[in-house]
Amino acid sequence: MSKKAVILLSGGLDSATTLFLAKKQGFECFCLVFDYGQRHIREIESARRIAKKAQCRCLVLKISFPWRGSALLDKKATLPYSKNIERQQQIPSTYVPARNTIFLSFALSYAEVIGAEAIFIGANAIDFSGYPDCRPQYYLRFNSLIRLATKTTFSGKEIKIITPLIKKSKAEIIRLANKLGVPLELTWSCYRGLKVPCGKCDSCLLRSRGFAQAKLIDPLLEKRYGAC
Amino acid sequence: MSKKAVILLSGGLDSATTLFLAKKQGFECFCLVFDYGQRHIREIESARRIAKKAQCRCLVLKISFPWRGSALLDKKATLPYSKNIERQQQIPSTYVPARNTIFLSFALSYAEVIGAEAIFIGANAIDFSGYPDCRPQYYLRFNSLIRLATKTTFSGKEIKIITPLIKKSKAEIIRLANKLGVPLELTWSCYRGLKVPCGKCDSCLLRSRGFAQAKLIDPLLEKRYGAC
Repeated sequence: MSKKAVILLSGGLDSATTLFLAKKQGFECFCLVFDYGQRHIREIESARRIAKKAQCRCLVLKISFPWRGSALLDKKATLPYSKNIERQQQIPSTYVPARNTIFLSFALSYAEVIGAEAIFIGANAIDFSGYPDCRPQYYLRFNSLIRLATKTTFSGKEIKIITPLIKKSKAEIIRLANKLGVPLELTWSCYRGLKVPCGKCDSCLLRSRGFAQAKLIDPLLEKRYGAC
Repeated sequence: MSKKAVILLSGGLDSATTLFLAKKQGFECFCLVFDYGQRHIREIESARRIAKKAQCRCLVLKISFPWRGSALLDKKATLPYSKNIERQQQIPSTYVPARNTIFLSFALSYAEVIGAEAIFIGANAIDFSGYPDCRPQYYLRFNSLIRLATKTTFSGKEIKIITPLIKKSKAEIIRLANKLGVPLELTWSCYRGLKVPCGKCDSCLLRSRGFAQAKLIDPLLEKRYGAC
């Protein structure tokens, strides 16, 4: 019997790479995508296409944050634009309170029901926006919570969160994605939900800097504008 | 400025008591109720009425468990009926995978946005059905996760889960509820979503045994059938 994993898929570059990595490690992958009122809702369509390309099941779950509290949930809010993103001191306004905790909780429920032994998340603590729930110690703590939280534990089995990209730079992730054959042209990173990436938000900046450092051309931009 | 708390309110006896206890401790209470496809959906109406009686805000959040995995989510499933509920060895079929972890995650998000310092949950490890996410060590672990999970931590503040009923027997909770003036006639415990409590499911059994031990009459039954 194959080993199963729930993959938190956002439609972005990191989660797509995580999916292809889990597949390569022999996991039967069950993608879980959240429609949570994000302004860049087009990432959901990206996620669906990526899952289809990987020939995996894809479940889109609708949840809501009626209390808002994030620029990602509010179309009128100004998105952060940091020239020196690596020197960022504050947690940016795109932080969604407890978002990863909520995502992982649902993934845990799903994993327990289908008998999956792993939950993959493409969190990254190097080229990231400073979110508290992207740090390695947060995932260690969550794994320690899981050991007490579910019925699975009583059966002697374990469900574990795996963060394969946590210590990789964006350039390293892009190189890995390239090697794994991730359809990078289908991924979507921009926080703005426009037809083309804005090129200015933190997420666009991290992506373009990553491609530059990896010495690769972003196929998403290549597709749209042609190779320069 | 008043101290704020998010109260996980289910419409049952324990969460109603927790709400009135938090109020008594001086918290401004924000009730959070989940519509998660439970077969005993009428508990939501109970929760609304209880919150109204306590003069507190009440937010009902719709979520779903498309993967099911619990008799509480499936109207056709047989509900457990344990004559000796205290000697129960196995986790019953009414266990909903990771339910409390999901509820607490949303409560954490809500608490962070409104600036609440506490999340109250009426979990109980004495007269309970054996769920893994009702034990004290689970809440200790969750509190330790919270310390790494949110932006709030970086501001030097803390959000803490409080479980005031965790070590009380059902009879003790009922006596406390009585003392606090909890509208017990509005609470709903039965797992079956019928017009009157079935009197046979684990939840009904725990409730009726609790009232008997507390030497009190259940006002919900008194109202329906008249005092015997």
